[in-house]
Amino acid sequence: MLIVKTIHETRIHITEARALGKTIGLVPTMGALHEGHFSLIRRCRDECEYCVVSIFVNPTQFGPNEDLNRYPRPFEADTRSCREMGVDLVFAPEPDEMYPHENITWVQVEKLSEHLCGASRPDHFRGVCTVVAKLFNIIQPDSAYFGQKDAQQVAVIQRMVSDLNMPVEIRSCPIVREPDGLAMSSRNRYLNPEQRRQSLCLFEALSLARELVCGGQANSAIIIEHMQEIITSHSEVRIDYISIVDNTLLQPLLKIDRPALIALAVYIGRTRLIDNIIVDPPA
Amino acid sequence: MLIVKTIHETRIHITEARALGKTIGLVPTMGALHEGHFSLIRRCRDECEYCVVSIFVNPTQFGPNEDLNRYPRPFEADTRSCREMGVDLVFAPEPDEMYPHENITWVQVEKLSEHLCGASRPDHFRGVCTVVAKLFNIIQPDSAYFGQKDAQQVAVIQRMVSDLNMPVEIRSCPIVREPDGLAMSSRNRYLNPEQRRQSLCLFEALSLARELVCGGQANSAIIIEHMQEIITSHSEVRIDYISIVDNTLLQPLLKIDRPALIALAVYIGRTRLIDNIIVDPPA
Repeated sequence: MLIVKTIHETRIHITEARALGKTIGLVPTMGALHEGHFSLIRRCRDECEYCVVSIFVNPTQFGPNEDLNRYPRPFEADTRSCREMGVDLVFAPEPDEMYPHENITWVQVEKLSEHLCGASRPDHFRGVCTVVAKLFNIIQPDSAYFGQKDAQQVAVIQRMVSDLNMPVEIRSCPIVREPDGLAMSSRNRYLNPEQRRQSLCLFEALSLARELVCGGQANSAIIIEHMQEIITSHSEVRIDYISIVDNTLLQPLLKIDRPALIALAVYIGRTRLIDNIIVDPPA
Repeated sequence: MLIVKTIHETRIHITEARALGKTIGLVPTMGALHEGHFSLIRRCRDECEYCVVSIFVNPTQFGPNEDLNRYPRPFEADTRSCREMGVDLVFAPEPDEMYPHENITWVQVEKLSEHLCGASRPDHFRGVCTVVAKLFNIIQPDSAYFGQKDAQQVAVIQRMVSDLNMPVEIRSCPIVREPDGLAMSSRNRYLNPEQRRQSLCLFEALSLARELVCGGQANSAIIIEHMQEIITSHSEVRIDYISIVDNTLLQPLLKIDRPALIALAVYIGRTRLIDNIIVDPPA
């Protein structure tokens, strides 16, 4: 497995693979890999003949008071995992390689970036789209793999790819959860044991929401109220948002009369966690 | 020569050309082709093995009160010219093909889009960058050709390509002028004979500016004042801007102590014309 730090060298290897007629898959990550990432990497390796994992903690998608500096960077463990899974190339640039001078070019998807995480992280998706566009231009993958845990990110990137005619297939993969239901996240390692226990309330709230919808409850406000009750009964947990939106443009849905994304973000101490489910109204 | 209206069919032909190992060149145009475009097309045909010309009057780069609807569309003459010059494929999509639903994804280059034409056409370069990004993703050219007449456009696109790591070389080609000095433009055909006579003041003002700089004048304000004098002595001509900016980030230069872009835009009747020169301070 190759570990490559420069764009130039990466392009040489990609060109070689392409010349051999290989299909190229990309799993863009910020490292601190967990079973969620592993599921993306395995699928990429199964579907593509040349599997690239990018590891880059992208500064332009972090807000000024977010966790850019303390974000975990267990590079040795990450590359070991990639090697074990049969990855062909790890692209792990330094920030200066990706942003050699002040970045003044942005890719932005309006509307889909407004609500949910976009409301509390105003420039986040602009940073995500920009770095993903850069990675796509560097790697030129046939397919790229993203986790449904970041549901809004998947929707925004799918729209970017469609609107800009990017020649890449976006594959979205299901959320991978701990046995007790907590969605896998690199940020879970910030939690102390008590916070870890309380973090179960995200999945509990979403599970209750699903039950309510299955039972015929279509009123978003009522569902959200029930979810709030669960979350606020946990002393260490503070709600950032609980939202129910349509599953295409991610605009608020008052009534669940079509496929809906139920998503929430909470702070547990200083750690921000997100989770979501997609629900269909009962037939 | 192929004339293709759909993205899908275009991709098939490009893939075939690529499979034959051909290098691909793109000349993006809005049609109404003139000698300026022809110089781009000839260079593309000389340097690339497969020459694509796109003809698309891009609605997203026109402001609400601009000339989108009356912009000339002499499609037969344009394709005849392309055929005569040995173009391989003309990509001529309808607006619905390029924008099948409301466009909500934008590529934007800050700073370089602020001044010059960006000041009076606030969303223009966002529209240009977005459609050029789309064309690059559809055609995936090795090289793309742009005219230096649109100096700010060239600078903005070069920065977009660099910042987003787009795998394409941008070739900028010199302004082509009528024998009397007027820069070739599709919009020149809007001018009536009197306006056409008065339009020479753009080139006269730029020529004077060059003389002043060569003679040692480095004070931008003084140069601009002399240029204004020439322009305002023409009854049909109204100045939009006359600016002297550095040739990288296009920020105003008070003193010409490095390579500078001297650019102007004027209205002659309802017709907006632009022109520019690049000057170096005397050694």
